[in-house]
Formats: sequence, C-alpha cells, structure tokens
Amino acid sequence: MKRFMDQDFLLSTQTAKWLYHEAAESMPIIDYHCHIDPKEIAQNRIFENMTELWLGGDHYKWRQMRFGGIPEAFITGDRSPREKFRAFAQVLPRLAGNPLYHWSHLELKRVFGVEETLTEENADEIYDRCNEMLPRLGARELMRKFGVKAVCTTDDPCDSLCWHAAIVADETMEIQVRPAFRPDKAVQIEKEGFAEYICRLGETVGREIKNVGDVIEALGERMDVFAAHGCLCADHGLDTCMYEKPDMDLAEEAWQTAMKGRPLSRKAADVYKTVVTLACARKYAKRNWVMQIHFGCLRNNHRIQFQRLGPDTGYDAVNSRSGIESLAPLLNAMEENGGLPKMILYSLNPGDNTALVSITGCFQGGGVAGRIQQGSSWWFNDNRAGIKNQLTEFSNNGMLGCFVGMLTDSRSFLSYTRHEYFRRILCELLGEWVESGQYPEDRTRLAKMVKDICFYNTNEFFGFHL
Amino acid sequence: MKRFMDQDFLLSTQTAKWLYHEAAESMPIIDYHCHIDPKEIAQNRIFENMTELWLGGDHYKWRQMRFGGIPEAFITGDRSPREKFRAFAQVLPRLAGNPLYHWSHLELKRVFGVEETLTEENADEIYDRCNEMLPRLGARELMRKFGVKAVCTTDDPCDSLCWHAAIVADETMEIQVRPAFRPDKAVQIEKEGFAEYICRLGETVGREIKNVGDVIEALGERMDVFAAHGCLCADHGLDTCMYEKPDMDLAEEAWQTAMKGRPLSRKAADVYKTVVTLACARKYAKRNWVMQIHFGCLRNNHRIQFQRLGPDTGYDAVNSRSGIESLAPLLNAMEENGGLPKMILYSLNPGDNTALVSITGCFQGGGVAGRIQQGSSWWFNDNRAGIKNQLTEFSNNGMLGCFVGMLTDSRSFLSYTRHEYFRRILCELLGEWVESGQYPEDRTRLAKMVKDICFYNTNEFFGFHL
Amino acid sequence: MKRFMDQDFLLSTQTAKWLYHEAAESMPIIDYHCHIDPKEIAQNRIFENMTELWLGGDHYKWRQMRFGGIPEAFITGDRSPREKFRAFAQVLPRLAGNPLYHWSHLELKRVFGVEETLTEENADEIYDRCNEMLPRLGARELMRKFGVKAVCTTDDPCDSLCWHAAIVADETMEIQVRPAFRPDKAVQIEKEGFAEYICRLGETVGREIKNVGDVIEALGERMDVFAAHGCLCADHGLDTCMYEKPDMDLAEEAWQTAMKGRPLSRKAADVYKTVVTLACARKYAKRNWVMQIHFGCLRNNHRIQFQRLGPDTGYDAVNSRSGIESLAPLLNAMEENGGLPKMILYSLNPGDNTALVSITGCFQGGGVAGRIQQGSSWWFNDNRAGIKNQLTEFSNNGMLGCFVGMLTDSRSFLSYTRHEYFRRILCELLGEWVESGQYPEDRTRLAKMVKDICFYNTNEFFGFHL
Repeated sequence: MKRFMDQDFLLSTQTAKWLYHEAAESMPIIDYHCHIDPKEIAQNRIFENMTELWLGGDHYKWRQMRFGGIPEAFITGDRSPREKFRAFAQVLPRLAGNPLYHWSHLELKRVFGVEETLTEENADEIYDRCNEMLPRLGARELMRKFGVKAVCTTDDPCDSLCWHAAIVADETMEIQVRPAFRPDKAVQIEKEGFAEYICRLGETVGREIKNVGDVIEALGERMDVFAAHGCLCADHGLDTCMYEKPDMDLAEEAWQTAMKGRPLSRKAADVYKTVVTLACARKYAKRNWVMQIHFGCLRNNHRIQFQRLGPDTGYDAVNSRSGIESLAPLLNAMEENGGLPKMILYSLNPGDNTALVSITGCFQGGGVAGRIQQGSSWWFNDNRAGIKNQLTEFSNNGMLGCFVGMLTDSRSFLSYTRHEYFRRILCELLGEWVESGQYPEDRTRLAKMVKDICFYNTNEFFGFHL
Repeated sequence: MKRFMDQDFLLSTQTAKWLYHEAAESMPIIDYHCHIDPKEIAQNRIFENMTELWLGGDHYKWRQMRFGGIPEAFITGDRSPREKFRAFAQVLPRLAGNPLYHWSHLELKRVFGVEETLTEENADEIYDRCNEMLPRLGARELMRKFGVKAVCTTDDPCDSLCWHAAIVADETMEIQVRPAFRPDKAVQIEKEGFAEYICRLGETVGREIKNVGDVIEALGERMDVFAAHGCLCADHGLDTCMYEKPDMDLAEEAWQTAMKGRPLSRKAADVYKTVVTLACARKYAKRNWVMQIHFGCLRNNHRIQFQRLGPDTGYDAVNSRSGIESLAPLLNAMEENGGLPKMILYSLNPGDNTALVSITGCFQGGGVAGRIQQGSSWWFNDNRAGIKNQLTEFSNNGMLGCFVGMLTDSRSFLSYTRHEYFRRILCELLGEWVESGQYPEDRTRLAKMVKDICFYNTNEFFGFHL
Repeated sequence: MKRFMDQDFLLSTQTAKWLYHEAAESMPIIDYHCHIDPKEIAQNRIFENMTELWLGGDHYKWRQMRFGGIPEAFITGDRSPREKFRAFAQVLPRLAGNPLYHWSHLELKRVFGVEETLTEENADEIYDRCNEMLPRLGARELMRKFGVKAVCTTDDPCDSLCWHAAIVADETMEIQVRPAFRPDKAVQIEKEGFAEYICRLGETVGREIKNVGDVIEALGERMDVFAAHGCLCADHGLDTCMYEKPDMDLAEEAWQTAMKGRPLSRKAADVYKTVVTLACARKYAKRNWVMQIHFGCLRNNHRIQFQRLGPDTGYDAVNSRSGIESLAPLLNAMEENGGLPKMILYSLNPGDNTALVSITGCFQGGGVAGRIQQGSSWWFNDNRAGIKNQLTEFSNNGMLGCFVGMLTDSRSFLSYTRHEYFRRILCELLGEWVESGQYPEDRTRLAKMVKDICFYNTNEFFGFHL
C-alpha cells in the first residue's frame, strides 16, 4: 500500500517515477491561461488569513461546501474566516475521489508544509499554523515557490493594462506577467450590457463606434496596445460555439438592432459573432498570436443566487449543447479567409473530445507542429479521469509530442499545484505505456517528450522566449 | 488467478475486501425505487417454478435471449417453463462481460446455493433443484434473505393502495413497503389514453376535472392519500426532459386540445408538462418528499412487437436526445417557484453524466447534504463499467460521501443481488484509491462512508427512520 | 517491464496470452469491409517502393505528418519517395499512444522483419532494406502472409466488376475477393453530381431512369449482377443517419427537383433517402445479404485542401450530429416493411455507443444470433481505448459471443495487422475477466468464443462458406 500522497503520488511504475522526478518535477511553469488579477502581482498582495487566500473567490470549493450541506453564511456570507475554514475542513473528508481533495492537500503541503490530512478536528490548529506563515508569502513569493516563469492573465480590451505596465517597470520582478486579449463583451451581442460595452470600447479608443467595421477596427487597435504590453495570445469564451455565413450586411443589421436594445434572433446574433470572431482571428494570425476558444459552458443557472452573488460564484455547468457542430465550419472560414491562427480549443463537454481532436486534425499546416490543438482538461473535466481521457484522446487522434500541456485557469496563487497534478498523470500514462511494451524504453526520448509537454512546447508555441 | 465469483468477487485489494466484508456486506437494504407489485408482497406470492420467478417479466433476460437467436416461443411464447429455462441457459455462456452473467449467477448462488456455472448441460438439473426450494421461498422470505428493510414501489396516483394498506395491517410483516407517487400518465399529455386517464383521475378524487388547475389539485389530493400510506417520494419518467416557460394560459389551451383528442405541438405539450411538473415539485417540497426524475428513454421501438406484447417487454433503448439541456432551467424554475424538493436525477444517456452532475452542483442548499444528486447507474448503464463511471463522475464533481447509493429498479424479488454488485464495485473503487495513495487509510472514516452510501444516507435523505 | 511489442504485446495475463497464441493468432482473416482496389489484386500489384506501399493513399498517416508540422510537399507533394518516408519516420516517435505507432511497427515487423523502432536516424536504412523485399511482395503475397481467406471490397452499383470477374477466373488465386454493394451516390440526393450519377446508373442498366421507382429497380438489377459476382453484403455511408416518413410522392418530388439541379430542403432530401434506403434494405433481406451502415462522418472540412486534393485525403472528422436519433425509427420501418436484413451498424461518434447497442437489442429476431449488431470500432475510434470501449459496450448490452469482429476498412495491403491488434485487445479483455474471477476459467469455451469472434461468426453471418 502506498502512503497517502507521498513523493510518488499517482506514480505506480518505475518509469513513471523516473520520468516525473527526473524530467517533469523541476520544469518551470508557464501558466498560459489564468484569471489572476495582475494588480495582486503588481502590489505583491499579502493575504490576511488562509480563508482569504484559500477559499476567497474559489467557487470550486464553494460548490462543494454547498454540496455538503454547509449554509451559505459559511461560504460567501458573514461568518468569520475561521468558521469558514472549519466548514470547508468539515466537508473535505467526504470528497473522496474529488480533485479538490488532492489539490487542497497539495496546496497545504507544498506551500505550508502541512503533512497531515485536514479534518474537522485539526482545522483550527492548521488554520493558525498557516496564518502565521502568510506575512512572508506574498503573491510573488507564492509564484516563485512553484517555479512559475510566466503567466498570461485574462484581460478586457478596454483594460488600461496599467498593472501589467507596473509589473514590467518593476525591476525586482523577474516573472513574465503578460495580458491575454479576451474580447467576449464585444462579441456577445445578445447579453445585457452589450451596447454600454461598445460605448466604453469607443471611449477607450477615443472615438464613437458607429458600425461593425468600427468595432473590429477598435479591437485591432487594442490588440496593438496589448501587443505593446507583451500580449502573445487571445481567448474567446463562447457559451456555445457558433457559425453562420459571415454576411457583413446582416451583421451590421444585427448590431444596429442590439445597440438599440432590441431583441435579436439567435441566427442574427450568430452572424454578428461569426463576423467579429473571424475578423479577430485574422488579426491574431497576422500578429502570430495564439487564439484560445473555450466553449460549452452553461452559466448562472441559479437565478436567485446569481442576483445575490453575481457571476463566477459556483453556479455554472457543462453545456451539453456546446455547438461543436459549428467548429469545423468556423475554422474552415478562418482558413479560407486567410486568417487561421495557431489555436487551442477547449470544450467543457467531455463528449466532444473525440470530435474535437478529429477536427483539429483537419486544420494542421503552415509548418507549425500542433498548430490547432485540443487544450487540457478544463474545469469540470480537470480531474484525474478527465486529464487521462484528454491525454488519451489527444494521443489517439493527435500527436501527444506536440501538446502544449497544462494551465490553471484559476484565480488563486495556490493553484499551480494543478501543474504538478497534471504532470504526475502524464508521467503515469507514459510509464504505463512503456512498462507494458506499448512504447520503447528510450529514456532520453521520453524525458524530452515530457519536458516538451511541460514547458518547451508552450514556450515555443506562444513565443515566450524563456 | 481468482476463482469465478468467490467471496472476494470484484475485490482486488486488501482495503476493498475489508471494506466490503466489514462495512458493506451486512448493511440492510433500502430499495427506494423498484417496480415490484405490492400485491405479491401482500399475498407473499409463492412461485410455481424457476422460469416464473427468474425469467417471468424480466425483459433484460428476454432481450439477451433474442440477441442469442432464441425464437420468441421460448421467451414470451408458449413453450414450457423448462424449455424456456433451458433456452436461457443456452445463451448465458455467450454473455461474457454482460451484467446478466453476474446477476444470474449471484441470484442462483445467494438464494438457491447453486455454486456451479449454469450451462446448457446442467440446466435441467439446476432447474429441478431450484424448483424444489420454491415452496419455502415466498416473496417475503426472498426479501428477508437479502436483508431488505424497506422498499418503495412505483404507483399510479389513481391506485387505491389497498395492497399497501394490507401489508401495513399485517402484523407478521416487518419490512417497510411504501408506495411512490408516479404521476406520468397525468403529465404525458401527448400519449394515447391521456384523456381517459384524466377522467379516471377525476373519478378517483370524486369530481370532474375541468382544467389544469383541477389536475394539479387532484394530484395534490392523491399525494395526501399516498402520504397517509407512508409515501416518502415521487418519481417522474420523462422520455425527454423538457422546459418551457410555465404559462398557465398556454397550458390550459394545450390541455383542452388534448382532452378533445386533437394533436398538440411539441411546444404546447412541453408547456403543459412543465406547468404540471413544477406544481408537483412544489407540493413534494412542501411534504419534504424526495423527487426522482428518470429521463432519456426511447420506448417501444419495435412497433410490431409492441402491438403483440405491450410495453416493458425488451424493446426500449437509450434516447440520445435526452433533453438534458432543459434540466437546469427546469430546476431553476422550481427554485424560483419556491418549490425545489430534494431530488435524484437519472439520465439514461451516459453522455449526460458530466453535465448532469455539474448541474446538480448548481442547486444545492437548504442545509441538506446532496440535496440534488445524480442517481445510480440506470438500466443500460447498470453494469460494472457504468457503475464505476457514475461513481467517478459523482466523485469528480459532486461529493461521494453524500450519495444515496443503489436501488434495483426491478420487477423481481431476486434483483437485490444488484445491491451486492454495486457495493462490491464501490468498495473496490475506494480500495483502489486508498492503496494507491489517493485517499488516507483511515478505516474508521472509510467504513463510515461505505455504510453511509449503502444505508444511512438513504435512510436520512428519504426519512425512513430505520 | 515488458519489451516493446514482444510476442505478448498487449497481453498481460496468462489467460490472455494462452487465448491469443492458442486460439486467436492462427485464425484466418475475413476482411469483410475494406477499400482495397480489386484491380490491384487482379494484377497482383508490385509496389515500387515503401512510400508507395506504406504511405501512398494512407490518409491516417498523412494527417499525423501534418500534425507534426511536415510541409505538404513531403506528404502529397512532389518530394521524393525517400524524403517522404524520412518525414514520416521523423514524426513517428512523437506519436506515443497513437495507434499508428503500433500499426506502423507491426507492419514493418510482420511483413519486413524489421525489429527496430523506426526513427529519423535509421529511416534510410530501413527504407532500403524494405524496398529490396518489395519485388517478392505482390498484393496477393501480402494477403497470404496475413492468412487472409476472404475480403469484401467496396464497389459502386455502376461498377462492371470486371476485376472481380478476372480474380474469380484466375485459378491461381485461392483467396475470396467479393464485391460489396455501396449505393451511396444513388442515395445522397443533396450532393453535387447526383443527377449525373443517376444518368450513369441508367446507362449501366440500359434504359433511362425516369423516377424513384426506376432508381430502385435499377439498384435491384445491379444487386443481381453483384450477387452473380459473389456479393454477400452492402454498405451504406450516411454522413448523418436520417429518417422521415417514407412518402413515395414526396420522394418523387424531391428526386425531380434534384434532377433539375435545384436545391432541396433537408427534409425533402431525407424523405428520398429514407425511401431508397428502405427499398434497398428490403432487397438485401430478400437476398439474405448483410447490410452495413456507417454514419456520423463530417467530410472534407478543409475546403481549400479538398479543392486541391479531393476527398479521402485526411480532412474528415467525427460528426457530433450523427443522426443516431433516427436509427431506431429507420430500423423499425424496415421491420414493418418486412425488410430488415442482418445488419452491422457503425457510428463514428463514440458518444453513440451505448445508445446504438441498446437499439440493436430492440431488433433481434428471426433466429439469427446477433442479427443486428454494432460493428467494430471505426476510424477515429480504431485504437486501443476505442476498441476496448466498443467491446465493453457490446458486452454490457449485447452478447459478445455473437460478435462478428474486426475488419480493416483500409486501402492498404498492410493493414491486416489491425486484425492482430484487435485480437490481442479482445484476448486481453477476456483474460482480465477470467483472472479477476468475472468469467469461469473454462478454456474450451473461451477458445471457442475467441475463434468465433475472430472467424466463425463472420463466416456464418455473411455466408462465406469457408
């Protein structure tokens, strides 16, 4: 019997252990997609207590507390930080098999040296012990502890990027913190607040936006600003992937309707979205940026809680109507349009995996290995089974050796343990293949493949020049 | 090599064996959803022969006999019971990997002490041996043999529940036999016989039903009758999960149309169904009942055989259009309506698993652990891979420790072996996690979790007070 | 640690090894669905070099070369055969986990005795060594090397079948080479070239085709010609499975519209397709042919490359809208129509597996074991995980013992190694069941089951009379 989460956690073969400890473990981290607030890095935020650092804003943990019957006062309400920590400790042991069980213990172990299993009984003692260490663990120290060399945050085109500028100007900061361009609010024409957002975009570029052409031009200008701040990639969040014939007149009509606050047909909205998405893609391709598309999310399902707590508070789900059927025509339109950038695609619906990888296989080219590829297991799939499935699908119909690997997609400075988690699962999978005679025991080549997937592929694909 | 189905069947680690034999095996059974006829319990039915007990009405077995090329005469036709038993024995060895192979042998072993593997060769001998034991194995003895403490049958709102009353009145009967409220016929407005059913419902409550409000009121009255007979839960079978804005006027219009026998649009039918389902849910919540929804079934696919044999004869399938996309809005409407009961959700489409569990995570609350949860692997998923998948999904995005576990969904008094099957798979999964260092080897806690999932969670969630 | 691809490749238990080497390995091959050109068999084609034999026309390999960043000139372009071989060798090591990694090495090993792992370094040497052997390895020698006893090619109804006739007339040829009837071009009414095809069909049967009835009659006549050439089966490729009420007048209207080159509604097209598919099925049933349906493919996704290279060049993908929801009504219509033939069904979408197998379970009968069954893992699912999943699903809800097993679906004379690959996975699965106590260790019965699945079931189901 292996001890709980020992040094060979998730590693069952000699090859897997060797690969993890010799090739993966010491690789630096490039976290190319996250939701960290750059201000916290710029100011090297110090957290007041473990609840703020560990549970604040972490809707993964909130959901599970609710699942365990914890009242909302202990989650997002007015109970004390200590009580909230205790409440999480109370539900944790029932989370057998949940990635939070592993992530939580990895976070406590790697950052705070907590070797015990967190339970209701030792919660107070661990809370106090961790809190004592917090003054020495600012945002940057946390990142350094994990060997983070570069991160890409997620930023609105209207963002001034002042915190990014401050970080770049700070000579004591050696970690790359780059913005990523996320123009969702300019694309999601059917959402509340669209017209207001377009006005804000106009203010940002210093002139009124009068039509779809202006929207696209404004986005292009902001891309230039982002590029000047070191941006290497964009990210589009589409609840549902869409494709309609990109007719500029229809897009214009839809836009004018939306700007007047009038309702749109699904089709009209999709024409506009397609037009703007294609235009963005073309501009990314020109700049050699990587484009990410996250699709298949069903957001804010609990309306009452949404009204109370706002978005990103633990009320999202997998959208079984992910729109995957529109993906191939969308990519084809980009290609025909002369503007298919390097791309990483994520569907929240795991049932899309095989289709998605098979579609990526249709749009390779341009001499870039893995030019279009499936991204790592995302959100509800970011767990041991989900990661293994994604790696298996990627291998079955893609080329594992070209994979750009893991990212956290997180708001927390503790989530870098997810890279460790991913790397262990990757090494375990390769170890299994080698020891069962499915891949030659060529350690040089295997170590290279692991290092590529953990670091070098990402570094080259995005152009971090690390 | 392990022997075939020995005491450690499906258990490969020491932890799994310990958990099963020490924690799971002796736990009583609460079979909270089944299709047993309460009359058979009330009368303590004695079966005339093994074919009647073992193959009669078991469409799982019928399907496989047909798959094996057995003519219908040996399945539902006029061949003798002995010939039918023999025919099943003939196909059984080809069912490697099929849960029926395991269920069948578990049933023969646990009830009749048959230790041999059933084959064409020994079929006659085993048939005779089992038949000899039948006079001592009435329905109640069978239930007791498996440690059954409570069952919920599946009952129509118009049912008099006389057999339930008879059982309650019978002082020699210590097992709880409770009705469950299944108002499908009052919901499925598009099905043949709807208008007749509404008339029958009117007769049952003693007044004419003149509108949708009357339907809802009548159902509420019947719920009171069910509650008086010990009912703790309801079950809705929806071929496809649906949600339309619950507009009472449109629902009324649809109902009037259906009562005249005229055809309805899909949308009109769905408005009515949504209205009635929401109204029922609210009433269940008020009574603190558990609501179950089974959706994603494609029924009676072989029309000729349906006309010959009727429903539930082995011609159903997984509906790939399960309607899962309507689930979140349906639950949200219940919540906004102030009437979201505790709920167990089952989709027959395994592709829905991740989406479904992620949706349950959006509607927790009210201080009840696992208030909304995915149910056990159902029907075409009730097999080793399906159970393991469901447990893994439940763990990945839900909280395994809150799971209410297994049920048979069966018409047979022998199917309680499915609880054993489930428990073995559960213990194997936990054992695997513990022995590979993924969960601490805390046997007290593990045993508690197993006992909770096998018995205590169900007992508390439904309120059996055992 | 097992050596890479040794004699017990993919076999981890004693039972699996015994089953593979004693029961599976020496079974002859019936490749009942492939895309081999019969002319190459008739002429016993000799390949000029390894690139022609191994990479020519193999779009599986082309896709992976593109994925690895190889420029098109080295794939379908004008680079030399040696350079193309080298380019493939260069990407191969990065294909860890991809079935091509195994298939490629199996092909080199079994046919050319290459025991090394192919890499960029030894590519030239291996290329030369293999090339030397090619003059002695004509198409027929390759088939004999693998123990092929019968193949079914894929042929258009208008095909003269002259090469099949030539093979039959050749007394030196002992392998059965049978045509299979693939009437896709007469069904796919919405595709370009439909009207021209119908004219060609008319020319083939020697009279003008004036209506849908004539189409059906012409197809029937061609079936007779195919039957005279030894045809035992048909194959329908449907991008999306469809069903509409088979109304002859609407079908006629759709056909007249299409013949004039005018656009059709989806529904109109589906009515026509349903009518013709049902008519064909009925004729197959009458002839006791096996009908195969392949559905769920999204073809030619990259329009620019399609215009350059044509179809079947590596730009296809899984269609997540496979149309599985139409499968049950389609089969029911055949049954009601008195014309449901023996059938093998393949969906390219692995998410359809459970639904598909559950549907096959509804249409058994006629005294034929496994009359309607799911086919082997197809294309993007033809890999270790996909094959294991398909076998597991088939076992869970079907009857593994009736399975007709593997086929290559390939254009290459080297692909018969896929039968070996499949057989190893099958034996491994059975071995796992036996050694973990899930199936009795009855070697006689197990060996029979393996031999049935590898050979005898197919032989009997199709009627090869081998």
